[in-house]
Amino acid sequence: MDQRPIGVFDSGLGGLTALKELRRILPEEDLIYFGDTGRVPYGTKGRETILRYARQDVAFLRTFDPKAIVVACGTVSANALTELTAENDLPIFGVVEAAAQAAVEATQTKKVGLIGTSASIRSGAYEREIAGLDPSVEVIARACPLFVPLVENGRFRPGDRVAELVVEEYLAPIRAAGVDALVLGCTHYPLLARTIGEFMGPDVNLIDTGAVCAGRAARALGEKDLLARREKGSCRYFVSDSTQDFAHLASIFLGETVEDGVERVEIWRY
Amino acid sequence: MDQRPIGVFDSGLGGLTALKELRRILPEEDLIYFGDTGRVPYGTKGRETILRYARQDVAFLRTFDPKAIVVACGTVSANALTELTAENDLPIFGVVEAAAQAAVEATQTKKVGLIGTSASIRSGAYEREIAGLDPSVEVIARACPLFVPLVENGRFRPGDRVAELVVEEYLAPIRAAGVDALVLGCTHYPLLARTIGEFMGPDVNLIDTGAVCAGRAARALGEKDLLARREKGSCRYFVSDSTQDFAHLASIFLGETVEDGVERVEIWRY
Repeated sequence: MDQRPIGVFDSGLGGLTALKELRRILPEEDLIYFGDTGRVPYGTKGRETILRYARQDVAFLRTFDPKAIVVACGTVSANALTELTAENDLPIFGVVEAAAQAAVEATQTKKVGLIGTSASIRSGAYEREIAGLDPSVEVIARACPLFVPLVENGRFRPGDRVAELVVEEYLAPIRAAGVDALVLGCTHYPLLARTIGEFMGPDVNLIDTGAVCAGRAARALGEKDLLARREKGSCRYFVSDSTQDFAHLASIFLGETVEDGVERVEIWRY
Repeated sequence: MDQRPIGVFDSGLGGLTALKELRRILPEEDLIYFGDTGRVPYGTKGRETILRYARQDVAFLRTFDPKAIVVACGTVSANALTELTAENDLPIFGVVEAAAQAAVEATQTKKVGLIGTSASIRSGAYEREIAGLDPSVEVIARACPLFVPLVENGRFRPGDRVAELVVEEYLAPIRAAGVDALVLGCTHYPLLARTIGEFMGPDVNLIDTGAVCAGRAARALGEKDLLARREKGSCRYFVSDSTQDFAHLASIFLGETVEDGVERVEIWRY
């Protein structure tokens, strides 16, 4: 048993998809969420910048003495997990390994689609992980740089013509390749899952990286007897930009009000 | 005569539209450009964050002892110019005043369209400036939060279906209102000018805020006898993210190679 909190971070709002799943499967845990809304997006930036920001995000979360950290950000998971793991003596869970495992288990055609930010796709991290699990799986990868701005601007509802057009443009070659699983390699993308699912068709399994990562973290903590025991865990939210703007959009993401619990942090100090 | 350089900054690439104009009309000046590519975009962020970033941008440029600073960023000009001007004892030129002047001069129908980032539109700065010049001018304003990601991702070429659809969605109510001038209240937007112009029609005057601001700064420096005298000025580029990515896109913006002259700066230290 370990009563300490679990830290979760993302470049912005996307990581809330992982947080929501963590709260569902581990309701007794205390969670600390940090969204780097003052510097979002990460996925269009260079690796050096991503690594610097990720180190600060982890340093901030460590001030709460967490028992583990969930990197609920595809870009950081793909570009900085090796360094973060080497530099910190606590379990750090990224989305790449869990998503690769889920993709390999899901595919029958041995053709897997992969979408993510420019930085994630450029890293090749998902392909390496999938090749390590099953070299016969072919990965058709595509960077989707406009998805994060669409989601961060609330443009993820089914019927949004711009979102539909962008989905069609990015995913047409992946659909044409005959994949039967598609890794949503950025935790923002599940918000677009209905639009993506309608375009890809019912036979393509969409892998929600935030959710599979949350599941994997929960299992790992359980195996090490590091889960908490209490009736109901708490959740605190921290952001690096305006708390008001975050509270509004986060409420839409989570389906519940978060107005009271958001605090601002000067992340550049960490 | 003043041989010192002119500093120019923006959240990212957009300010290059002002820089290009400055180089055209003041070829003898030394210019220092800073693009905060590590924290772009500014326009979706809160005022407090914008002000903090803008102060750091100015502090960095001041290390070069500039004779003036051009705020080639609509978001900073609309949200932080008062503070920057009060805190610094050198001429600081923003885009709002120059653009408002140009709009009032351009309109016959007394109906002016205004587009900008969410933070710029929320500030009301352009409307205040225009009302101060001519209270009979009606301003039809609209935030266009997807324009910056489109431009920063290179999606500004005529024929880009996504850009066309977004332009249509944002501008339809402004066109319907019968404006005859449209303030492109963000220095990224001139890159979309052809697409915007085609949608608005030939009778609508597009006001390029970067260009009018450059013109205004040049006139003001000339009036104070602060222009330089040399054969050909230099231009140095600084960014807070990868220099390579910037050099590639900046070359497209400027129509000339900038590979050699880009340096990285740790802007959070200022």
